Amino acid sequence: METKKLNIGLVGYGFMGRTHSNAYRSVRNFFDVPYEPVLKAVCARNPERARAFADTWGYESIESDWRSLVKRADIDLVDIASPNDTHAEIAVAAAEAGKMVLCEKPLGRNAAEAKAMVDAVEKAGVPNMVWYNYRRVPAVVLAKQLIDEGRLGRIFHYRAKFLQDWTISQDLPQGGEGLWRLDAGVAGSGVTGDLLAHCIDTALWLNGPIQRVTAMTETFIKERKHTLTGKVQKVGIDDASAFLARFGNGSLATFEATRYARGHKALYTLEINGEHASILWDLHDLHRLQFFDHGDEGRLRGWRSIHITDSDHPYMKHWWVPGLQIGYEHTFIHQVADFLQGLSEGHGPSPTFRDGLATDYVTDAVLKSARTGEWEAVEPGD
Amino acid sequence: METKKLNIGLVGYGFMGRTHSNAYRSVRNFFDVPYEPVLKAVCARNPERARAFADTWGYESIESDWRSLVKRADIDLVDIASPNDTHAEIAVAAAEAGKMVLCEKPLGRNAAEAKAMVDAVEKAGVPNMVWYNYRRVPAVVLAKQLIDEGRLGRIFHYRAKFLQDWTISQDLPQGGEGLWRLDAGVAGSGVTGDLLAHCIDTALWLNGPIQRVTAMTETFIKERKHTLTGKVQKVGIDDASAFLARFGNGSLATFEATRYARGHKALYTLEINGEHASILWDLHDLHRLQFFDHGDEGRLRGWRSIHITDSDHPYMKHWWVPGLQIGYEHTFIHQVADFLQGLSEGHGPSPTFRDGLATDYVTDAVLKSARTGEWEAVEPGD
Amino acid sequence: METKKLNIGLVGYGFMGRTHSNAYRSVRNFFDVPYEPVLKAVCARNPERARAFADTWGYESIESDWRSLVKRADIDLVDIASPNDTHAEIAVAAAEAGKMVLCEKPLGRNAAEAKAMVDAVEKAGVPNMVWYNYRRVPAVVLAKQLIDEGRLGRIFHYRAKFLQDWTISQDLPQGGEGLWRLDAGVAGSGVTGDLLAHCIDTALWLNGPIQRVTAMTETFIKERKHTLTGKVQKVGIDDASAFLARFGNGSLATFEATRYARGHKALYTLEINGEHASILWDLHDLHRLQFFDHGDEGRLRGWRSIHITDSDHPYMKHWWVPGLQIGYEHTFIHQVADFLQGLSEGHGPSPTFRDGLATDYVTDAVLKSARTGEWEAVEPGD
Amino acid sequence: METKKLNIGLVGYGFMGRTHSNAYRSVRNFFDVPYEPVLKAVCARNPERARAFADTWGYESIESDWRSLVKRADIDLVDIASPNDTHAEIAVAAAEAGKMVLCEKPLGRNAAEAKAMVDAVEKAGVPNMVWYNYRRVPAVVLAKQLIDEGRLGRIFHYRAKFLQDWTISQDLPQGGEGLWRLDAGVAGSGVTGDLLAHCIDTALWLNGPIQRVTAMTETFIKERKHTLTGKVQKVGIDDASAFLARFGNGSLATFEATRYARGHKALYTLEINGEHASILWDLHDLHRLQFFDHGDEGRLRGWRSIHITDSDHPYMKHWWVPGLQIGYEHTFIHQVADFLQGLSEGHGPSPTFRDGLATDYVTDAVLKSARTGEWEAVEPGD
Repeated sequence: METKKLNIGLVGYGFMGRTHSNAYRSVRNFFDVPYEPVLKAVCARNPERARAFADTWGYESIESDWRSLVKRADIDLVDIASPNDTHAEIAVAAAEAGKMVLCEKPLGRNAAEAKAMVDAVEKAGVPNMVWYNYRRVPAVVLAKQLIDEGRLGRIFHYRAKFLQDWTISQDLPQGGEGLWRLDAGVAGSGVTGDLLAHCIDTALWLNGPIQRVTAMTETFIKERKHTLTGKVQKVGIDDASAFLARFGNGSLATFEATRYARGHKALYTLEINGEHASILWDLHDLHRLQFFDHGDEGRLRGWRSIHITDSDHPYMKHWWVPGLQIGYEHTFIHQVADFLQGLSEGHGPSPTFRDGLATDYVTDAVLKSARTGEWEAVEPGD
Repeated sequence: METKKLNIGLVGYGFMGRTHSNAYRSVRNFFDVPYEPVLKAVCARNPERARAFADTWGYESIESDWRSLVKRADIDLVDIASPNDTHAEIAVAAAEAGKMVLCEKPLGRNAAEAKAMVDAVEKAGVPNMVWYNYRRVPAVVLAKQLIDEGRLGRIFHYRAKFLQDWTISQDLPQGGEGLWRLDAGVAGSGVTGDLLAHCIDTALWLNGPIQRVTAMTETFIKERKHTLTGKVQKVGIDDASAFLARFGNGSLATFEATRYARGHKALYTLEINGEHASILWDLHDLHRLQFFDHGDEGRLRGWRSIHITDSDHPYMKHWWVPGLQIGYEHTFIHQVADFLQGLSEGHGPSPTFRDGLATDYVTDAVLKSARTGEWEAVEPGD
Repeated sequence: METKKLNIGLVGYGFMGRTHSNAYRSVRNFFDVPYEPVLKAVCARNPERARAFADTWGYESIESDWRSLVKRADIDLVDIASPNDTHAEIAVAAAEAGKMVLCEKPLGRNAAEAKAMVDAVEKAGVPNMVWYNYRRVPAVVLAKQLIDEGRLGRIFHYRAKFLQDWTISQDLPQGGEGLWRLDAGVAGSGVTGDLLAHCIDTALWLNGPIQRVTAMTETFIKERKHTLTGKVQKVGIDDASAFLARFGNGSLATFEATRYARGHKALYTLEINGEHASILWDLHDLHRLQFFDHGDEGRLRGWRSIHITDSDHPYMKHWWVPGLQIGYEHTFIHQVADFLQGLSEGHGPSPTFRDGLATDYVTDAVLKSARTGEWEAVEPGD
Repeated sequence: METKKLNIGLVGYGFMGRTHSNAYRSVRNFFDVPYEPVLKAVCARNPERARAFADTWGYESIESDWRSLVKRADIDLVDIASPNDTHAEIAVAAAEAGKMVLCEKPLGRNAAEAKAMVDAVEKAGVPNMVWYNYRRVPAVVLAKQLIDEGRLGRIFHYRAKFLQDWTISQDLPQGGEGLWRLDAGVAGSGVTGDLLAHCIDTALWLNGPIQRVTAMTETFIKERKHTLTGKVQKVGIDDASAFLARFGNGSLATFEATRYARGHKALYTLEINGEHASILWDLHDLHRLQFFDHGDEGRLRGWRSIHITDSDHPYMKHWWVPGLQIGYEHTFIHQVADFLQGLSEGHGPSPTFRDGLATDYVTDAVLKSARTGEWEAVEPGD
C-alpha cells in the first residue's frame, strides 16, 4: 500500500500542542496507518517560542499568524491547539480554505460558536474532529463495547466527576501564560467547559443524549490578580460545577467538576450501573477497568479490576506485552491512528465537530440552569 | 461505683431489633458504663415471634401490644425498632408515660411526625436518641475530630452516596415481612428516608446545616405485587434520589442514594474536601479512613489509608489489638455506651430527636424539590 | 430440641480469654446450636484479676489454681487461654480428668509438648480443639470450598505472610504482663510459633502437608530488659522468620513472619495460584476475598474483590444484611458454633490437637533449619 | 550548546528492539540532552524483518550480520537487544572495536559470560550500560531518594516478587520466535535470569549487596515441543524460582519469580521495611508509590498512595501535568536521557556492565543453591 503524506499545520504550542505533536510523530511506529503525518508548520504569535517548539518536535517551518498558516497550499490539515477564544475563528477560516480541521476541546466557548464551526466544516465538506481524547482510552473503549453488546442491560445510573485541586491558592493569578483557563473571556467558562465537557462527551458517547439538567456553580475565590492587566479583578469563571441530569434512555445522572478537591489531580471517574452489570473507570489508573457482572455465580460476584494490557483489549496489541501499562499521551496517538485509518476507509472520524457541538449544548444548559435555578432542557443535537 | 439497672422495653424484632439487643447485651463486656441494661421485655404483634426473639436474646418477658409495654412500671426505656409508620405514635406515648425513648431512623415518615415526637420528648423532659449509628463508626468519629480541630480548613465540597442493588428484580413484592421498606405507606418514602437520611445525618453532624437543595427522584419499577393485598399495585416509593445542596458554610454538595446500583450492597461513601486536607470514608470498609494532608511534604503527598484499629483511634482501645478490625454491629454498641455514659454524666445523648428532625426537614425538602423541580429551602432546625 | 448446658472453665484472662468468653456468650444469639455454654469459672493466679474478669464477662466463680479447676465436677470443658508454657501441663491434666479440652494456639511450645497433649486427649477420648481461628473467617472458608471443588486446578504456588511492627522499639521489655510473647521460655519461640503457626495451620488445611523447608530467622534486637528480673538479658525469641517450602501436592511456597515490618499491624496474607484460578486474602480486610478466574472471558478477566457479606457466603446468613461487614472476634464465635454443632452430631471438631501437632512439626522443622542451614524434612503427621 | 550526533547500531528487532528504538526517537522531544541519537542501522539475521523494522522506526540502513555492524565506522554505539546467548560475543567484539556498548539484561547467561563482557568494556574504556529499566521508574527513583536520605532508617526487610502466568499451558512450545525465553540454551535460565534479575538489580541498587542465599527452583512442565527441532524435548529452564537472602546491611529478604501465578501478567512488586518508614511499589501500577511514615501523627498513620505525576517527582516535569500517568516505555526514555546527559558530563551511566555482573553473581548463587540445597555465598562484586 502506498503511504500518502498528510501535511499538518498546528496552531498553539502549549500542553495540547505537545500531545498532538507527539501523536503525529509516533503513530506510525505503532500503527500501520495509510497516511504519514508530516509536521509542516507550527504557528504561534511569539516567533521565538514557535521556533523552539519547532526544533523540539521537528516542525519544518513556523508561522506567527494563523491566517497565513491557513492559506498555505502545502498544508492539508489545520490542528487548533490554542486557547478556546481562538477556536471558532480559525476553524471557520480553515474550513473555508478547504483544510481538514482538528480542534481541541471544548469546540467553542459556547454552543453558538460551536454551531458556526459545525456549519463551516459541513458546508466545506472537510474532515473534522474534536480532541476528546478520553474516547480513546482502551478501558473506556472496552466499556463502550460492553454497553453496545448489551452486557449492562437497561441503564439506571450514570455518574461522572472530574476533580482537581490546582487553583485553591488565592495567590494564583488569572490569565496569561498557562493560566488562560482562569480567564472567562478566553476560556468561555471554568470547569464546566474545561472538565465537565470531557465527562459529558464520554457520557453522550456511552449513554446517549441528555434531556434535562439542573445545575449549580460556584466561584470560591471571587477576585484574582489578572496577569495581563496587573490588577485584581473579578473572577468570571466557575470554580466548581455540578448538575443532575436525565438521559433519553431513562437513566439518572450526577455530574461534578471542581478545581477545589484537595488531593485529586485529574480524577476523572465514571460509573455506569445497568440491570446486569456495572462499570467504573478512573483516569488516575487509566489502564484499569472495574467491572461487576451480576451474571457471575452468586457467592463469587465481585468487582473485577481488569488490567487493560492484554492483546485482546482495544489498541493494546500495538503496544507492549501483557502487564505493561500505557500512559496518558497514548490516547492521542490512538485518536490520530483512528483518524488516519478513517480518512482512508471513508468512514468519518469521531467525535466530529457535530459531536462536539452536542457537548456544548449540554454545557450551555448547565450554565443556564446555574443562573436560573431551573431545570433546563438540552438543545437537541439535530 | 454502684451500677444502676436500666430496664429496656424493645418494640420490634427485625434487623434493628437484633442490632439493638446485641448492643445492650454486649456493651458492658467492653465498656465500663455506669448502667446495666436489663432486657426486660420485647414487644411484637405476633406473640410466637416475640417469644422466639426473647429466647434468642434473653428478654425476660414479651408483650404483643406496645401500649401495654409503654405503661409497664418496670420499664425505664422504650426502644422503637419497628417500621417507620409506628415511630411517632409509640414515641409520643412513651414520652407521655415518662419513659426514655430511643427510636430507629428516620425519626418520622416526614418532618411533621418527627416534630410531634420532638415536642413530646422535650415536653416530658425524657432522654431521647435516634439510632443514626454511623456517627459511631470510629473512622467517622476520627473525621469529626479532624474537622473540629480545623485540620481541613475551609470546606469546599461534601459528597455522599448510599448505593444498593437489592430491588432491581421486578419479581420482588412490596410490603410484608422484611419488605415494608418498599411500601410507601409504611416507610414514608423510599431511599430518601431510608438511605439518604443516613447520609444527611452524618453530613449535618460533620459539616453543619444545609440551606437549599434541588433534587430528582425516580421509581424505576412502577408496579409491584403487594404482599398484603396480593395485587399488583403502583409503587409509591422513590427507588433512587439525588440532590445538589448548598451548606451554610458555603460548601457545595452532591447526595445520591439508590437501590439500583448493580454491584453495591451498602456502599455508603462520604468525602469532604477542605482547603488543607480531605477525607473519604466508605461503609464497605468501615474500618478504614482515607486522609489526604496537603501539609505533607510535596513529593510525598498521597491519600493515606488509615487502618482504624489502634488504641488511639476512637473507641478502639475497648476492642482487640492493632490490625484487628471491628464490624457493623459495633457501631450500635458504641452508641449504647455513649448513651449510658451520658445518662450518668448529665450530658445529652446524640443524635437527639431534635437532631433527627433536622434530617427530616432535609428529606422533606428533597422530596418537595423532586416534585416541584425548584430549589427548595430547608426548614431551619430551630 | 432440648438444649444441653455445657459448663466452661476458662484458664487465662488476657486477649484470648476475652475472645473466647465473648464467643461463648454470643454464640446462641446468632447460631441455633444444641448446647448452651455456661460460664462456670475463670482461673487466674491473681484472684483480683480473676474477679474483675469474672464480673465483666459473667463467670459464676473464680479459681486461682488451674489444678482445682480441672478437678471440679461442675466443669465439662477446660479452655486454655493462658501463656504457651502452661498449655501442655493443663491440657494433659484436664484430659486425664475427662474434660473436653480447648487450647489456644500454638498447641505446645514445640512438637514434643504437643505430642504429649495429643496422646493425652486421644487416650482419654475427649473432644479437643485448637483455636486456630482463621479457619473460620468466611472468606477463608470460601477459599477452602473453591479448592475442594477443584476450581483452582493443580496448585503451583502458596504464599503467606504475617507482618507486624509492634516490637521495633528497643525500649520494649521482654516478659511480664502482655509481653510474655517476647520471652522465649514462656512462648517457646518468637514469630515462628506466634504468627507463622497461623499461616501454617491455614496452609495445611487448604493445601495439604508440607514436606520440606529451608528457613532463616533473625533477632534484630539482641538484648532487652526483662520485666520480671529487671535486668537487661539476651533475647531468646526470633523476631523474624522466613522459609521456603515444598508441599506434598508439588506446589512451592514462601512463608514469612516478622514484628519488624513498619506499617503493618496484623497483615496476615495468603495467596494460592492454581492452574485455573487464584485466590488472595488478607486479614486487614478480612471480609473480602480476591479471586481471579481464568475461565472468565479473556478481555474481562480480572481480580474480583468479593465482599463476603452475602447470605450465600459461609456463616454470613447468621449476621446482618449484604454489605455489612463482620470483624475479628466473629471468627471465634464461628468456631464455638461449629464445635457445639459437632458435639451434637458426633463429627469431630476442627482443628483437633492432632491438627495442631501437625503445625508444630512444621514450626519445629523451620526452627531447626534456621539453625542448621539445611533443608529439613517435616515429621509426618501420622 | 552544540548538539552532537550519536550514531546508533541496534542488534535485534523484538520487544526490546522496539522499546530502545522508541527511546532514541523520543528522548529529545521531552529531554534537553546534549546528544542526538541517530538511528543509523538495525541488524537482524533475517533481512526482510530488519527492513520492515527499519521502515517502522526510521533506521537508515540494515545489516544481517552483527560482525559487519560492529565494524562500521559510522556507528558510535552498539545496542544489543538480541537473545541472551548473543550478548557476550557481540559486546566483546563491539568493545574491542571501540564502540560504546549497551546491552539488554541479563548481561550474560551466567556470571562467567558477564565477567568477560565487563573485562572487555573496561579494557577498551568504552561507556557501557545494561538496560535494567526499572531503575528509571519515577516511583522507584523516589524510593531510592528516600532511602539515601535516611528516611527509612535501619532496614529490616526486603521483599520482591515478579509474577507472570503466560507459560501455564502445556501446549506452549519452547524456542523459536518470541519463545526463546523457554529455551535454556538461548536464555541461560528461566525466570531466574529473566525476572529475578530485575528484582535483584533493583535490590542491589536500593539495599546494597546480598551476602548469602538459599533457593529452590521448579520446572512444572517437564517437556515441551521445541519449535526449532519439532520434537518434544526436556525443558531446561526454571519455571519458578524463590530464595531467601541476607543483605550486607543485616536485612532479611525473600525473592520469588514465576510464570505460573495465574492472574498476574507482570507483577513486579518490591517492599522495604525500615525502622522509620516503609515503601512498596508494584509494576502493575507503576505510577504509584506506597509509603508509610511512622513519623506521622499516631492516629493518622497510614499507607499513602502517592500518585507519581507531579513536577517534583523524578523525571515528571518533562511529561504532562499532575494527575496524568506515564507508561512502561517511558522508563527506557529516561534511561537514554540519563545516558546521554552522563556522556556529556563525564559521569558514568548506571547500571554499568559491572553492575550487571553483580546481578549475575547473585543469580548464579541462586541457581547453585537450588541444585545443592545449601546456603550459597554470593561472589563479591569487587
